[in-house]
Amino acid sequence: MIKVGIIGVNGYAGGEVLRLLIHHPEVEVAAVASRSQTNRSVADIFPSLIGHKTGGMRIVAVDVQEFSGCDLVFLAVPHGVAAELAPALLEQGKKVIDLGADFRFRDVGVYEAWYGVKHSAAHYLAEAVYGLPELYRERIKGARLIGNPGCYPTSILLGTAPLLQRGLQEVELLIADSKSGVSGAGRSPKPDLHYAEVEGSLKAYGLVRHRHVAEIEEVASDLAGREVKVSFTPHLVPMVRGLFSTIHLTMKEEITTEELTRVYQDYYRGEPFVSILPEPGLPQTKAVIYTNNCHISLRVDPRTKQIIILSALDNLLKGAAGQAVQNMNLMCGLDETLGLNYTGIWP
Amino acid sequence: MIKVGIIGVNGYAGGEVLRLLIHHPEVEVAAVASRSQTNRSVADIFPSLIGHKTGGMRIVAVDVQEFSGCDLVFLAVPHGVAAELAPALLEQGKKVIDLGADFRFRDVGVYEAWYGVKHSAAHYLAEAVYGLPELYRERIKGARLIGNPGCYPTSILLGTAPLLQRGLQEVELLIADSKSGVSGAGRSPKPDLHYAEVEGSLKAYGLVRHRHVAEIEEVASDLAGREVKVSFTPHLVPMVRGLFSTIHLTMKEEITTEELTRVYQDYYRGEPFVSILPEPGLPQTKAVIYTNNCHISLRVDPRTKQIIILSALDNLLKGAAGQAVQNMNLMCGLDETLGLNYTGIWP
Amino acid sequence: MIKVGIIGVNGYAGGEVLRLLIHHPEVEVAAVASRSQTNRSVADIFPSLIGHKTGGMRIVAVDVQEFSGCDLVFLAVPHGVAAELAPALLEQGKKVIDLGADFRFRDVGVYEAWYGVKHSAAHYLAEAVYGLPELYRERIKGARLIGNPGCYPTSILLGTAPLLQRGLQEVELLIADSKSGVSGAGRSPKPDLHYAEVEGSLKAYGLVRHRHVAEIEEVASDLAGREVKVSFTPHLVPMVRGLFSTIHLTMKEEITTEELTRVYQDYYRGEPFVSILPEPGLPQTKAVIYTNNCHISLRVDPRTKQIIILSALDNLLKGAAGQAVQNMNLMCGLDETLGLNYTGIWP
Amino acid sequence: MIKVGIIGVNGYAGGEVLRLLIHHPEVEVAAVASRSQTNRSVADIFPSLIGHKTGGMRIVAVDVQEFSGCDLVFLAVPHGVAAELAPALLEQGKKVIDLGADFRFRDVGVYEAWYGVKHSAAHYLAEAVYGLPELYRERIKGARLIGNPGCYPTSILLGTAPLLQRGLQEVELLIADSKSGVSGAGRSPKPDLHYAEVEGSLKAYGLVRHRHVAEIEEVASDLAGREVKVSFTPHLVPMVRGLFSTIHLTMKEEITTEELTRVYQDYYRGEPFVSILPEPGLPQTKAVIYTNNCHISLRVDPRTKQIIILSALDNLLKGAAGQAVQNMNLMCGLDETLGLNYTGIWP
Repeated sequence: MIKVGIIGVNGYAGGEVLRLLIHHPEVEVAAVASRSQTNRSVADIFPSLIGHKTGGMRIVAVDVQEFSGCDLVFLAVPHGVAAELAPALLEQGKKVIDLGADFRFRDVGVYEAWYGVKHSAAHYLAEAVYGLPELYRERIKGARLIGNPGCYPTSILLGTAPLLQRGLQEVELLIADSKSGVSGAGRSPKPDLHYAEVEGSLKAYGLVRHRHVAEIEEVASDLAGREVKVSFTPHLVPMVRGLFSTIHLTMKEEITTEELTRVYQDYYRGEPFVSILPEPGLPQTKAVIYTNNCHISLRVDPRTKQIIILSALDNLLKGAAGQAVQNMNLMCGLDETLGLNYTGIWP
Repeated sequence: MIKVGIIGVNGYAGGEVLRLLIHHPEVEVAAVASRSQTNRSVADIFPSLIGHKTGGMRIVAVDVQEFSGCDLVFLAVPHGVAAELAPALLEQGKKVIDLGADFRFRDVGVYEAWYGVKHSAAHYLAEAVYGLPELYRERIKGARLIGNPGCYPTSILLGTAPLLQRGLQEVELLIADSKSGVSGAGRSPKPDLHYAEVEGSLKAYGLVRHRHVAEIEEVASDLAGREVKVSFTPHLVPMVRGLFSTIHLTMKEEITTEELTRVYQDYYRGEPFVSILPEPGLPQTKAVIYTNNCHISLRVDPRTKQIIILSALDNLLKGAAGQAVQNMNLMCGLDETLGLNYTGIWP
Repeated sequence: MIKVGIIGVNGYAGGEVLRLLIHHPEVEVAAVASRSQTNRSVADIFPSLIGHKTGGMRIVAVDVQEFSGCDLVFLAVPHGVAAELAPALLEQGKKVIDLGADFRFRDVGVYEAWYGVKHSAAHYLAEAVYGLPELYRERIKGARLIGNPGCYPTSILLGTAPLLQRGLQEVELLIADSKSGVSGAGRSPKPDLHYAEVEGSLKAYGLVRHRHVAEIEEVASDLAGREVKVSFTPHLVPMVRGLFSTIHLTMKEEITTEELTRVYQDYYRGEPFVSILPEPGLPQTKAVIYTNNCHISLRVDPRTKQIIILSALDNLLKGAAGQAVQNMNLMCGLDETLGLNYTGIWP
Repeated sequence: MIKVGIIGVNGYAGGEVLRLLIHHPEVEVAAVASRSQTNRSVADIFPSLIGHKTGGMRIVAVDVQEFSGCDLVFLAVPHGVAAELAPALLEQGKKVIDLGADFRFRDVGVYEAWYGVKHSAAHYLAEAVYGLPELYRERIKGARLIGNPGCYPTSILLGTAPLLQRGLQEVELLIADSKSGVSGAGRSPKPDLHYAEVEGSLKAYGLVRHRHVAEIEEVASDLAGREVKVSFTPHLVPMVRGLFSTIHLTMKEEITTEELTRVYQDYYRGEPFVSILPEPGLPQTKAVIYTNNCHISLRVDPRTKQIIILSALDNLLKGAAGQAVQNMNLMCGLDETLGLNYTGIWP
């Protein structure tokens, strides 16, 4: 059994890591920590754990010593905090998966420009691996430090990787219109996350300067071998979970919907968590929530010379905790799907 | 008092026309009709009317004779049906406002190609006026037959008219990603409108070939004086009302967010139902539902050379019944805002 | 025009008073105040007012001097605060309607026991009138200080008044199971009002000792002329507005559903805001939200000797702001329905 | 591996049985049938199965021959249909679990009176066992035909069994006010299950004569050894899953909340799926949905002499499919929790 710790267990992503690991056959959760909830039981902060044998597990302080018995630690903490915690854990020989942004970038200047803070562990960026298994599986297997991707980048990069990497189209600009459920905004109460303010309301936010732009552009450019820009507009939708990206790009080389669908099916053949839905299929968030799956569909419009890509996933699973566990499986030499192979739930 | 009739009162748009007219100071609702609900009272099909003096009004059959006492008739019926009903009403000297698609097009070939039916009253298209008051107010005042715009076209055309009409940018292609509440799909029960199937789910539908494409392109091209194409992707969102469009276009002439905002403020100065929200303001559907208002914000991204336009309205009001009543006011020489000047409701 | 002020305009109830008065034909809103939002415009805190001429109104400090030009002031402030503000306003000759609990009780001991605070203006309790117009209309007309009823008490008292007051049944105990939308919990952000925590969840709260028990019992006992107790269980439901009470009492004298329905119809005959739905009709919150209406249905079960009463209203309107405006109309000699006679909105 | 079939797989309960069995370590789903969806794949009707290896399973016709290779068959079909199908299956030596009402009653007269149909297999009622494992575990282990309980009865019977069976109170009447998510109403589209009609609306339905009254009364009387009546009022709540019962009974013998809680904890000690939440804990549907758990809390109000019991579960799991799989485990000699021991999901 692999012994695992979770720092920041009280948030939605940290809580999902815990939930997945409770049911994981090869993992023992050795310690869970939270700055604000120390000494409470996990069932106190997640009523969904009441009655389960794990419910009584105590939350410890955010102190690296508490994790001395762990082989691997998940960090589900604000950006900046992970950069402070990771070095001590790595020096003790542990593997680290950071669900935040601190180890997603290769270029520290990009990180510091978009996040507006100084990086306190920049020398680890060179060895950190961007934890998107469908794109960087082999490197993840050998990594000891993972920058787990953001939810929006995961949906947009999975949705465009075949096009970017196969060089079928000369891509300069992606226009990505994404819609996220409210759990993506975190668990802290805020006026604009109040039920009565959110219900029945859809809005855009973070236009032009959302931090995920930098992350998407760095990876997309790496895949394409040329500079790719993204015009990214996220929206908040009155639903708890689910993330849906509608991506537009200009067709440079003629291709049909059928041909493009085959390219994607070929690219993702054998991938356990990515499904390409051929026409007339279309993704919907309800089909992917509570799973680690990503559903993708494609349409080519010869009239307007647009390629339209639809990509749906669960922001807390394939967009955060599920992907983190998938990375853990790879890093620890386990079957990549262990603890993740759930179907969705309907309705 | 103007005597008004409503055919198709049982649907959501027809019901909203009735609700608005009940509170309108210069209108008397003389007759309401429905094919499926004949002889029931309006409160039987709209429990929100229970206890109101109008609740007992009887629904009559869809028979032009029943509307002989009316000055103006609203048609909230499927496309094709309005084309059958309108000629007889017009010949009796009545004004007609059709909330469907039958009289929105100038080119009958476009209508027949996108709607897949033969138009039975094509000779009326030449005199029918597209009922978007902010764009065609003077022609509406003199019209006797209005093709009331679709909900998506209203949001996209109001969001782009200043750019298209002022020639500030050479616009060839609009990329419009729109999101609608479920009431836009009509009142008939269908498997994919079942509460348990919709709740928590967001999906795209009608890609590439949604009928509103033709409507948007015809009007946008008219405004721009050149051919404008639209790549339009509608989405269904788990909320009852509200429609939000995120529109992208490529910046050809340099302009800033501030300058563009001023252009829009200038264009819509004095308009009672359009508000331009300057930076950092952003629209949200909750702020416009239950009103006839459209909220618009603009952002220019010099990095990607994209202009992003956000436009929010209530699909049943400014997107249907509210706009229809606004048209009625103009056609009847009344103050354009009569019966429509409600603030939104929060929360 | 009556000049009116609102203190605590930033909350949901205060905001609804403002919204109703904006459209009221005989009222001018002279000043609005908030402790936390001073100097902002009302449209800043209620985006639903953007574009409306009233949207730019400035919020002033909570200072009685700011209301010197007002004839009547609404207090939508926490309990205890109203008791501090009301005396100065009354001494300046203004009428006062308190939407909180400070002036709902005749017995200061009951108030202090259930609310756990000392009442700082207890000498005003003797003249304060409980503002439930259907029960105390004549006294309201002559009052200068109103304790506007709570949302749960309004629904339960309207649902039982005919039985209590007509002495048809010897009532000792009411069992009331009530369900409220989230707006009833106020606008302040709290962990358990976070959208992602509330959505999909129904729960009971405040069992046995909810403060509305005292209010219901005092008024019910007054109506019955004997002591009536209530076993009251409120529930929080994932919806924004609406309050639904299911009330059980033991049938002592034989009566049928039809007979009981006639008693209620007779009792409420001519009431503009109460509708009795005869069998097979049943109330639903969607039919009453956004209105000042209360819908009531009755069922007698001879098998179990239970009378079951269903009562639905909008917690922010008939349960708060709408009732407050109704009281204002009565106190100012206006038509009781002015500014309140809206139908519901569907869907 | 036990070979299992599901008839009526296309509905919500049948689909949940399939989902649970896909992940069950000792079961192979050998055949699934549906009258309306024959020859489609299960992923066609449950998009949540897209990408899973089971998604391609074909749906067969409702024909007993198709299930010849099965050891056990689940019937998730309308009442009346199960009575027609069960005899042939039993005669072939299969075990049968009926999720409908046909085999829940011992008294065929009660069934025929409340369901209004003639029972076509009444001679099987004597051997059928009511499948509530916490109450009838030993009999279930030996049964070959199970009448799987209704969702409301499960929540109310688990909530009252300790009181009824231990004779602590002389119970004559239970007053049960229950609230269910919309999935409890089935998957067929109907006007009043349309998203736009349900969202934001709470209503009572089926007053006085809901069929679950008969089921609750038969079992409660059996437990109490005397006649127990129930006054039952179900409500439809705008949420997908979850069922919450608030049960009132009159206290005859003095008892405190603490004492009563201990009685319940003692009664359910060792039960894997029932948790008693001591004061100040309270159940909420979000904590139990997606699990087979039932959460129960108790409050005694000495002031009104009322005992109030709160009971929450997932209507499709502990209220239907989960309980059915629990029964299967017992009937087949497996660990009762196999395939069911999931924690809840938050948020």
